[in-house]
Amino acid sequence: MRRQNIYRPRRERIYDWMAGESIAMVMLEDTEGRRDSNIRWLTGQPGDALLFLSVERKSLLVPWDTNLAKIYADTDHIRAYADFDRMPLKACKKAVDFFGLPPGSKIEVPPVTPYPGFLRFLEALDGFDVLCRDGGIAPELEKLRSVKDGAELENFRCAAAVTDEIIDALEKLLRQGKLKTEIDAAAFIDAESRRRGCEGTGFETLAAGPSRSFAIHAFPAYSGESFGGAGLSILDFGLVCSGYTTDVTLTVARGLSKPQEQLLALVENAYTLAVSTIKPGTPTADTAAAVDAAFAKAGKTMPHALGHGIGLDPHEGPAIRKRDDNRWIFGPGMVVAVEPGLYDPLLGGCRLENDFLITGDGTEALTHSRIIRL
Amino acid sequence: MRRQNIYRPRRERIYDWMAGESIAMVMLEDTEGRRDSNIRWLTGQPGDALLFLSVERKSLLVPWDTNLAKIYADTDHIRAYADFDRMPLKACKKAVDFFGLPPGSKIEVPPVTPYPGFLRFLEALDGFDVLCRDGGIAPELEKLRSVKDGAELENFRCAAAVTDEIIDALEKLLRQGKLKTEIDAAAFIDAESRRRGCEGTGFETLAAGPSRSFAIHAFPAYSGESFGGAGLSILDFGLVCSGYTTDVTLTVARGLSKPQEQLLALVENAYTLAVSTIKPGTPTADTAAAVDAAFAKAGKTMPHALGHGIGLDPHEGPAIRKRDDNRWIFGPGMVVAVEPGLYDPLLGGCRLENDFLITGDGTEALTHSRIIRL
Repeated sequence: MRRQNIYRPRRERIYDWMAGESIAMVMLEDTEGRRDSNIRWLTGQPGDALLFLSVERKSLLVPWDTNLAKIYADTDHIRAYADFDRMPLKACKKAVDFFGLPPGSKIEVPPVTPYPGFLRFLEALDGFDVLCRDGGIAPELEKLRSVKDGAELENFRCAAAVTDEIIDALEKLLRQGKLKTEIDAAAFIDAESRRRGCEGTGFETLAAGPSRSFAIHAFPAYSGESFGGAGLSILDFGLVCSGYTTDVTLTVARGLSKPQEQLLALVENAYTLAVSTIKPGTPTADTAAAVDAAFAKAGKTMPHALGHGIGLDPHEGPAIRKRDDNRWIFGPGMVVAVEPGLYDPLLGGCRLENDFLITGDGTEALTHSRIIRL
Repeated sequence: MRRQNIYRPRRERIYDWMAGESIAMVMLEDTEGRRDSNIRWLTGQPGDALLFLSVERKSLLVPWDTNLAKIYADTDHIRAYADFDRMPLKACKKAVDFFGLPPGSKIEVPPVTPYPGFLRFLEALDGFDVLCRDGGIAPELEKLRSVKDGAELENFRCAAAVTDEIIDALEKLLRQGKLKTEIDAAAFIDAESRRRGCEGTGFETLAAGPSRSFAIHAFPAYSGESFGGAGLSILDFGLVCSGYTTDVTLTVARGLSKPQEQLLALVENAYTLAVSTIKPGTPTADTAAAVDAAFAKAGKTMPHALGHGIGLDPHEGPAIRKRDDNRWIFGPGMVVAVEPGLYDPLLGGCRLENDFLITGDGTEALTHSRIIRL
């Protein structure tokens, strides 16, 4: 009953959109190499599956694991993927029959559908109008999902609370000298967050001590190298409650040289600047441009975007970057991660990242990561 | 020098293939949502990047993080992705100029390229013959990669040795009653494997106690539930050395009911049967069919494939399943994971999985996972 209250209204918004676009059926696919959290957003189903939505306002889920689907999924119908030899095309043809679509109906598949695979869809669904386009179902879902509903904010608050607890615990352990290596830090986050009820981590925890913090995303993600010693260390992680992930980065600073202090000060100032510009109605590119300009003034370039929305995915709408194709505007209900950072092969790297809910007139900080000076 | 000895010969085989197919340039892309380990296989570059290979036998790498690329990548040329606003099309056009491709040249992009994105390639590379096909570069790479070279086997032996150590340590901890929850088991694997030098885990470690082992892949991957108590518990993990992952599953059995014993016996027998049929020259579908038939005789159905190749990816060629489109044949130098399993909503699930090198006349077990009876 509770699940239905969450997922059915989301599907209704897609059905409305389908009716407006005269789309008879939408197919979504969540598979290895092409993950799609839209199926979880629309039904609660967390794993591999196909989802078919009919403009007649019915949903058909085709999961890999029916046992899991029976527990998690809110959908009108379930059919096992194994019944179709785990082949999307077979399942799709069956869904067309199941919903009784008349020939000529519009069927939309996701824009990430590979070109050769789409050609096979066209052939197999001869007589139907099969669409695969950038301007269709995917951006509609991205737009809807960029503004979080009450159930989603509840999950964020849960994830943010544990994230803050873990940050405090990490700082304490660091000050006590109990975290010595990158493995110590990452293993603590990964196990302790689950012990505190998290579903998992939103992405592989990144722990980079002074010898490896020069990389945006250290490779490997963590290792036996020293963490929190002299220089700059970076810790980037996200904790998940009921699917929704935080995304925070803290920098640990100890015994910095003057150039390292300057690098860190630039990042801290950029962070404050960025947060001060975020308001409903502001183009996200403007916030990114302000930070880029501040770094440029100091002769520095940030090698990644300033931020991004978070949710069921660690990166979702809105994008926060200065690029011609970025048309996002901050709006109430969006939840974003802001993460200015600078990286130098010799000095190391530093990044500060927290998550913010966009409110009616500004931002509310959900997480409280920080620079930890030892 | 050592890196060049590994990666350049691999690229040479692709250049030969390109010459035979009259392909002037191949583009590969490793990006979020569309990971491609072929770039690591061909250059050693482990993270986000584009790779352009010219039939003139030159490679151009366009990495997101140039600092990492300078350490890891063996390539003729490097250009920062940021120089092209991190847009594949811009980078691709530049590569065409860089290699001086004459108009009309054949350029191949991966078959996972989304349909709308491919249309943009066609438009931007007007005057060139742009290919995106199932029968091209991707299966060629998959075929080459399915037979491992000496450097790859060295990495597998390293990963397998740590995997076996961890299995022994897990059994000891279980018998001592020191692993009580799924988190205990997964946290031990994740941290201890890195302490023993592994680069990471090949996929999220799955630990499912008796209450959750009914799922093929438990969701969440691990939790605070009890592990190793009465019934069937499953532990599925892979450890990585220099990119190459093992993939093993062990089942922990305690105080089983008769139907649970029968389920477990079916899986153990299927495992023995499967391994006995693997020989060079045998179609992998035949091995899968033998297991399917054995399960069917007992009125059971395995809801997933019998196995798969492993390597830089946890799933790569050869596929080991009974399906019309499976034409793989076991050959010397292949490394495969064999993983029969059965799952019941009431009894729980069991799976036994180990990794094998195909030799001249059969198999060599690389890992030694097992049923642990407490």
